[in-house]
Amino acid sequence: MATASQVRFDRWFEELAAIGRTDRGWNRVAWTPLEAEARDWFARVAGELGLELRQDGAGNLWAVTADAGSGPWVCAGSHLDTQPDGGAYDGALGIVCALEAAAALLESGARRRHPLAVVAFVDEEGARFRVPCFGSQAITGVLDVDRALHVMAGAERIYGVTGESLRASTAQLSHVRSFMEVHVEQGRALAERGQALGIATNLAPRQRLRAVFHGEANHAGTTPMPGRRDALVEAALFVLAARDAALARPGAVATVGRLEISPGSTNAIPGLVAASLDARAPRAETVDELVDELRTAFPGAELTGESRNDGAEFDAGLRGLLHDAAAARGIPAVDLPSYAGHDAGMLAPHRPAAMLFVRNPTGASHTPAEFASPEDCVAAAQVLADALERELAAP
Amino acid sequence: MATASQVRFDRWFEELAAIGRTDRGWNRVAWTPLEAEARDWFARVAGELGLELRQDGAGNLWAVTADAGSGPWVCAGSHLDTQPDGGAYDGALGIVCALEAAAALLESGARRRHPLAVVAFVDEEGARFRVPCFGSQAITGVLDVDRALHVMAGAERIYGVTGESLRASTAQLSHVRSFMEVHVEQGRALAERGQALGIATNLAPRQRLRAVFHGEANHAGTTPMPGRRDALVEAALFVLAARDAALARPGAVATVGRLEISPGSTNAIPGLVAASLDARAPRAETVDELVDELRTAFPGAELTGESRNDGAEFDAGLRGLLHDAAAARGIPAVDLPSYAGHDAGMLAPHRPAAMLFVRNPTGASHTPAEFASPEDCVAAAQVLADALERELAAP
Repeated sequence: MATASQVRFDRWFEELAAIGRTDRGWNRVAWTPLEAEARDWFARVAGELGLELRQDGAGNLWAVTADAGSGPWVCAGSHLDTQPDGGAYDGALGIVCALEAAAALLESGARRRHPLAVVAFVDEEGARFRVPCFGSQAITGVLDVDRALHVMAGAERIYGVTGESLRASTAQLSHVRSFMEVHVEQGRALAERGQALGIATNLAPRQRLRAVFHGEANHAGTTPMPGRRDALVEAALFVLAARDAALARPGAVATVGRLEISPGSTNAIPGLVAASLDARAPRAETVDELVDELRTAFPGAELTGESRNDGAEFDAGLRGLLHDAAAARGIPAVDLPSYAGHDAGMLAPHRPAAMLFVRNPTGASHTPAEFASPEDCVAAAQVLADALERELAAP
Repeated sequence: MATASQVRFDRWFEELAAIGRTDRGWNRVAWTPLEAEARDWFARVAGELGLELRQDGAGNLWAVTADAGSGPWVCAGSHLDTQPDGGAYDGALGIVCALEAAAALLESGARRRHPLAVVAFVDEEGARFRVPCFGSQAITGVLDVDRALHVMAGAERIYGVTGESLRASTAQLSHVRSFMEVHVEQGRALAERGQALGIATNLAPRQRLRAVFHGEANHAGTTPMPGRRDALVEAALFVLAARDAALARPGAVATVGRLEISPGSTNAIPGLVAASLDARAPRAETVDELVDELRTAFPGAELTGESRNDGAEFDAGLRGLLHDAAAARGIPAVDLPSYAGHDAGMLAPHRPAAMLFVRNPTGASHTPAEFASPEDCVAAAQVLADALERELAAP
């Protein structure tokens, strides 16, 4: 099937990996000078490929072929930003695969019925302002612009982004025909199954809640055990119950990642504890059941929903193109749900979207320990190029 | 027995309670202007009683009779400082009872074979610099002066206290013949037994530890439950095990009051958790057993001792004087261990010391909800006055 020449991988990946690299990991947090340096690098490579660089009102960068005005674009890409002390692959792998695929397709003179664009979504990680998938939320119209401006507190003019431009950025979506994103896997499912690549079936539904436990703060020495109402004892039971509720449901995960304890003194019985709960499962009903089980088991606790995402299906047509491409190249690939938020997941309800995961033998994420072998990275770029070639030729 | 005139209670208590009073509670944190105002008030009342005011090198205030040089002093008192948003009685009750007892004894012309002193120990609560019983630790020579100066970071010159004066303050102990302290109970034991007063038998032994649990931080969405190493799950089991270990030992208490969670993000499995443990029991061996049980149950945790106090016996002679005085006045009083640190507990290993607890119907401590009835306060002041009279007359 493929007329695309063999893709490369290492040249641009090494250039990008040199930006923000420290002893503790990669630091290209969005809206900081090191991410800006990566954006300049992206613009330079786009220019080398003969692509025209456009920035939308949210700050996303689109490197598009000269026929940009002839119709919606076939898009591939990911994000340039990292978590603080993050890894080399999260985001960068998808950017470089898209650039390499574009380079191979342009060089091979593959037939295109649509413009081709490589996109660098701004601030996928949300590390600085706690608004993950900022750029893809903005263009799909789900970003709470007022809240975003509030948390950015004057910093929004970086990259020229304003409230007005953010609201106008939804127009960008009309330029998108489809979107494919390569991403390093954030777990070990592929490694355990001996598969190089995973093709995302869906974005797993997720709920985030705040659970507040009420006790009675008192002196740690003078208050006998029998009469105590220790809010941390309740919260400890909740941590264990959340774990058990997830273990009882195949594919479900539940995590208490934060606890705020009041008064929080060595010498005081905790009177108030607030816990975070993050629960995900293959089906939205399963997340609901898990949360309901906890609500029933802790009638004295206040469980408040903080965010809810019922997930999204990735596009069957694009998934088929990726499966075909992997099979034709003899690369082992398997279906896999996505348990993390991604720009492709934000686009999926609005435009045909797909994701290609790359085997991560360490299973680490958001740390320098995340890894993908050069062979697997090349395989991903090749499969993306082949799938893009089919999509570009489609009517 | 008593020749002391009837004591009063309300006049000085109301004056002191007016200092640092806010909508949220009493705020006379040591080394702040509002505690300084209380110290000025103490000096004024001492003057009205004809007592001579002395400040030792640690900042403790001693109001002593004119025969101060004739031998060691019979002392009573407590502390003027409060926790932030603390209660009206903790500290203040003991100061006012001692002043009222002194006033009654001086007025009645009771026979004295020793000087009489009312003492206001500085910084019992340790609210600002986390060094509780600062003043009594200093004069008994157990204060870590270098550490204290470090945490006070230049603020030590308040009240003229310096490293040199702190080290020299141990000389003050030679002036102390004995010490009695009235204190609001920090629990409901007296209320539950229908007793107005409690006479402390001993200071309960206490250990404070830091327990560190190691897991593996990872993505809350993409890490399946079976492979997780969640440090907060371990810490939750520890919270429950500490409670159970205390419940299994009569009179023991164990409290986890603080947890530090790393990375502490909604989206991340906790990789490291540090917990505080405060354990107390009537006997030091019981505390050791409780801690050993937890150490054995959590072999992967690091349990590090942070402080250890094997407790102290209060003086049998002074306790007898207090019991006799209560009995003679027909006031119900009962033996009670002390589960909290107090200046009297610091002095007990070095000088005859005793404590008189006053019924607290709410059982609250370090909050404005702590309470003692005017009748119980007067009873405590009277019993103290009668016991002081006997002690002043003793050879």
